[in-house]
Amino acid sequence: MNRLVALDWGTSSLRAALLDAGEVIEERSSPRGILTVAPGEFPAVFEAACGDWLRQGGALALLCGMVGSRQGWIEAPYCPCPAGFADIAARLAWVEAGRIAIVPGLRCEAHGVPDVMRGEESQVFGALRLLGLDEGLFVLPGTHSKWVEIRGGRVESFSTFMTGEFYALLRQHSILQRTLPPADGELDTNGFLRGVTHAMQSGNLLHAAFSTRTLALFDRLPSGALPSYLSGLLIGEELRSQRLATLARPLVVIGAPALAQRYELALQALGIPVRSAGSEATWLGLWSIAQTLEGTA
Amino acid sequence: MNRLVALDWGTSSLRAALLDAGEVIEERSSPRGILTVAPGEFPAVFEAACGDWLRQGGALALLCGMVGSRQGWIEAPYCPCPAGFADIAARLAWVEAGRIAIVPGLRCEAHGVPDVMRGEESQVFGALRLLGLDEGLFVLPGTHSKWVEIRGGRVESFSTFMTGEFYALLRQHSILQRTLPPADGELDTNGFLRGVTHAMQSGNLLHAAFSTRTLALFDRLPSGALPSYLSGLLIGEELRSQRLATLARPLVVIGAPALAQRYELALQALGIPVRSAGSEATWLGLWSIAQTLEGTA
Repeated sequence: MNRLVALDWGTSSLRAALLDAGEVIEERSSPRGILTVAPGEFPAVFEAACGDWLRQGGALALLCGMVGSRQGWIEAPYCPCPAGFADIAARLAWVEAGRIAIVPGLRCEAHGVPDVMRGEESQVFGALRLLGLDEGLFVLPGTHSKWVEIRGGRVESFSTFMTGEFYALLRQHSILQRTLPPADGELDTNGFLRGVTHAMQSGNLLHAAFSTRTLALFDRLPSGALPSYLSGLLIGEELRSQRLATLARPLVVIGAPALAQRYELALQALGIPVRSAGSEATWLGLWSIAQTLEGTA
Repeated sequence: MNRLVALDWGTSSLRAALLDAGEVIEERSSPRGILTVAPGEFPAVFEAACGDWLRQGGALALLCGMVGSRQGWIEAPYCPCPAGFADIAARLAWVEAGRIAIVPGLRCEAHGVPDVMRGEESQVFGALRLLGLDEGLFVLPGTHSKWVEIRGGRVESFSTFMTGEFYALLRQHSILQRTLPPADGELDTNGFLRGVTHAMQSGNLLHAAFSTRTLALFDRLPSGALPSYLSGLLIGEELRSQRLATLARPLVVIGAPALAQRYELALQALGIPVRSAGSEATWLGLWSIAQTLEGTA
């Protein structure tokens, strides 16, 4: 197969790429996340987004993300971990046989509680191929950050941290909003790293978050540095729970540059070696999954 | 002095009591928290709330809470810890000499970061007298819970946990709001204790909070139990950071019954002995502070 139509169709947006021989030749994005799509409307939104690509010689469309959830186009039941390329390819949910398929998300279990991802699995598989790795710890920062452990090319386990969402909640809806300046402004590196350090020392976000208010109250941090400090608190709290000291190889940070840079800054300050991959890893991940279908589709 | 007018004037409400010989003879409350009071309007709101009590033989009015903050009537600068009755009485901010005074809040410092309280100090001092204690660990659950360590009748140190506020943020503004039923309903004890346990095992709220969603997704918890589970997660996260195992005497829980009961339930499950005091401890605290003024006012 030479051409693939790849979609990352999430809650609030849709991104699509046309790949030829593993290379992205065109990209598109649209605000038609699944929350904006009524049941029954998925075929039309898909057609508008990239129907032309499929007609112009695209052999296959592979979709990942919340489009495979209960609220999506069709449900692609979660694939249990450990899971690799082949496990996922064997569990594609076919919207149209041999032509349009949805990649299942993953689930795992720890302390008797399940965890889930949808879309990040394709990004991780792409990063594995991009970086030539089949072992290691990966982080995908975001609204819901994912920490993913890879062994033998498969996702062994992972855990979700609601870091980005907590930042937004505290920033916009909490008492801290009264203390913080209206705009986030540029990153204040000192303020950010001070937040990271305090979260790790404090060991409890319910307590550490209050320091944003008291540091401002006693003029211990300039107002302009407070959003960066709060961001550092949140990211530091996430890092606090990872086993970073015993990593055998560099931690891989996968994501858009602005956010990935903050994680890299914090990790650097902690002396943790890092490699990075961009969010375009998704396309390579979907391409890799498509390759396992050769001869079956 | 036989009669005291006592006020707990916070951000969102005002509570007042008339005390005679240490006994409450009348109580009032009003929604005129300081956020509703324009600068310059404090005397009129005070007069409407309890001016009659002062005229009818009340010798003194003592006010505690956010009324002493920068946004309040007059600022009563924080009293540094360790602090006892006498330290606070020596730092009253007099609105009207010998007649109306504001009790200062407390501040302390840990890990290079300040912490503050306003109003809770009066509650703790009241509970000390109520229970005949001068040592111990005290918790005042709420929007911003306070954990207070008492030695020799003085507040040695304390720390704030934004537990109630985080619950409200997650309940009302986060993705979990889509999973939770519209109303909180009655406390589901099993769901609540499961939340407490998971928070303590997980060790990180950013991660543990996501379990509210996944347990619902896989039908592992009935929908009606989810608000109690989330409440348990938050309270468990707060308890996780306390040194409960080495307490020399019962932990004292001070607060309104509905919330105090949840803490007692969690602490009981953890095998921690508990004593309680109601939020009326505030009146006794203000009374006790007033007693130290005898002969000086």
